[in-house]
Amino acid sequence: MDAVTRVGITLGDPAGIGPEIVVAALHAAPREWRDRIVVYGDRVPLERAAAQLGVTMPALELVTSGHGDACTPGTPDRASGAAQVAYLEAATAAAAANKLAAIVTAPISKTWARRAGFEFLGHTEMLAARLGARDVAMFFVGPKLKVALATVHRPLAEVVTDLSTERVRVVIELVAASMVRDLGVTAPRIGVVGLNPHAGEDGLLGDEDAEIIAPALEQPCPPATLVGPLVPDAAFRDAVHGRYDALVAMYHDQGLIPVKLVDFDESVNVTLGLPIVRTSPDHGTAYDIAGKGIARPVSMQRALALAIEMVARRAAQAR
Amino acid sequence: MDAVTRVGITLGDPAGIGPEIVVAALHAAPREWRDRIVVYGDRVPLERAAAQLGVTMPALELVTSGHGDACTPGTPDRASGAAQVAYLEAATAAAAANKLAAIVTAPISKTWARRAGFEFLGHTEMLAARLGARDVAMFFVGPKLKVALATVHRPLAEVVTDLSTERVRVVIELVAASMVRDLGVTAPRIGVVGLNPHAGEDGLLGDEDAEIIAPALEQPCPPATLVGPLVPDAAFRDAVHGRYDALVAMYHDQGLIPVKLVDFDESVNVTLGLPIVRTSPDHGTAYDIAGKGIARPVSMQRALALAIEMVARRAAQAR
Repeated sequence: MDAVTRVGITLGDPAGIGPEIVVAALHAAPREWRDRIVVYGDRVPLERAAAQLGVTMPALELVTSGHGDACTPGTPDRASGAAQVAYLEAATAAAAANKLAAIVTAPISKTWARRAGFEFLGHTEMLAARLGARDVAMFFVGPKLKVALATVHRPLAEVVTDLSTERVRVVIELVAASMVRDLGVTAPRIGVVGLNPHAGEDGLLGDEDAEIIAPALEQPCPPATLVGPLVPDAAFRDAVHGRYDALVAMYHDQGLIPVKLVDFDESVNVTLGLPIVRTSPDHGTAYDIAGKGIARPVSMQRALALAIEMVARRAAQAR
Repeated sequence: MDAVTRVGITLGDPAGIGPEIVVAALHAAPREWRDRIVVYGDRVPLERAAAQLGVTMPALELVTSGHGDACTPGTPDRASGAAQVAYLEAATAAAAANKLAAIVTAPISKTWARRAGFEFLGHTEMLAARLGARDVAMFFVGPKLKVALATVHRPLAEVVTDLSTERVRVVIELVAASMVRDLGVTAPRIGVVGLNPHAGEDGLLGDEDAEIIAPALEQPCPPATLVGPLVPDAAFRDAVHGRYDALVAMYHDQGLIPVKLVDFDESVNVTLGLPIVRTSPDHGTAYDIAGKGIARPVSMQRALALAIEMVARRAAQAR
């Protein structure tokens, strides 16, 4: 098996819904994917999830930490915290050594990861630091909407001060490159959403659309076509109707409200800008339902399928 | 005919799509509505729209201004500006004299209305001033979502400074009252959307959710139930799935992006807080397609139907 097509799956917090959604996704995966998948997780939580779901854990490469075997579903503790960090460290080291082309990450608990010595805000920041990526962006890829964010987890009051022409341009270029290379859209139409109501309405409702966002669209971005700044309350509807292949949104809720509304749990979170592919389901550890066998595995299944697809496209182009 | 059930329709700019959407809505309206409708508009643009749509202008009370008869579809001018202001002034005077229970407004051009001496930002501000309303709010009523706005046409940077507990509370109470009185929901569940991503995530992503919004929910609001501050990216999806009967959104695009996404042109803009019912379609004058007979009348039809429904409910309760 060629090393550059291997896909790692990290189990996240073994006390969360990670084990059951990973097992369900592996069970549903085509047989031919199995020999290219490596799971970073412990045997006990995986076997328990498989037993509860009434399926057999597929035979595939497993990298264990030992910390997760004693954990209890729904009850995170120091051991489950240490386990989730160990899975991620091992997968990241494999990626840095060019042994993985992609990592699919099940959810971690930021609180318990931090107690286990994890120094990053989340997966994205850790992967960016360890794999040497300067500019990264969150890109939500769903069946109806594909939306990247120019700013992410910020209070609304700070969005305006955080936004810069340079940042908007970087995200535009990351999306354009990914649409072509990873998703096979040869000439993507990228809509750049405005910041203010009616995209500022000629300055009556704010200057940022004209002064910060518009300059980011001045340079062409072949083979992508750029359109914007778009009126926010029309942009997402128009994108759903096919006018744009992808959108760049300016802040978290501008992008996430429509994504969750039309794609719900079929949307996959893709990290743009890393040297590897990274996807993840768009939900958290969900301790309240962990171990009950009722967690919906759709988002994890989509995250795995998208990682496999992106890796295959990149490999085909490298040939 | 009892005066308090009469519904006025203002034609808006006669050079816009007003005449054709009004004629189409009247043509589609049940015959029994006709004797309670008064149209504030001129004969020539209405007859022209009827001829183009291949329908007969229904016989009903018409209050003309004379200014609109010479206007050309798609080409606003001083005469069409004077006409749209005259229609609105006449309808407002009738409402102030208790001769109208509702006004349904077709779109005006703020630019041309201003040139004709109109001193207000829009319909809402004019009606509030003339009819003596202190607190008004925009409420979008559609088949899938009902959403009121705590702040309206403001640059995003000013939303945070504009927001106050008092304002959020006022809008909650206006929505609660309208849901019961106008829409017949006896015990409405009202969701109040947070301002920041994840509703502030315990202060990590902003303090406004806890400090400004949450206090507005402390007092009960019977017979309504209040829930919030809700995580914005889940609130609209949950409302579409029936968890809330109506939402209070904190800013224009937070509410309008989901409304336009799921209800598109079936959403009606209702002004809460006036002594009369006021509804309007959720679009502008659309000069680019005016007079071509292609404007979609759905939103005007819904605005008229909702006004008739709200007036009937209020009249039944007054008996």
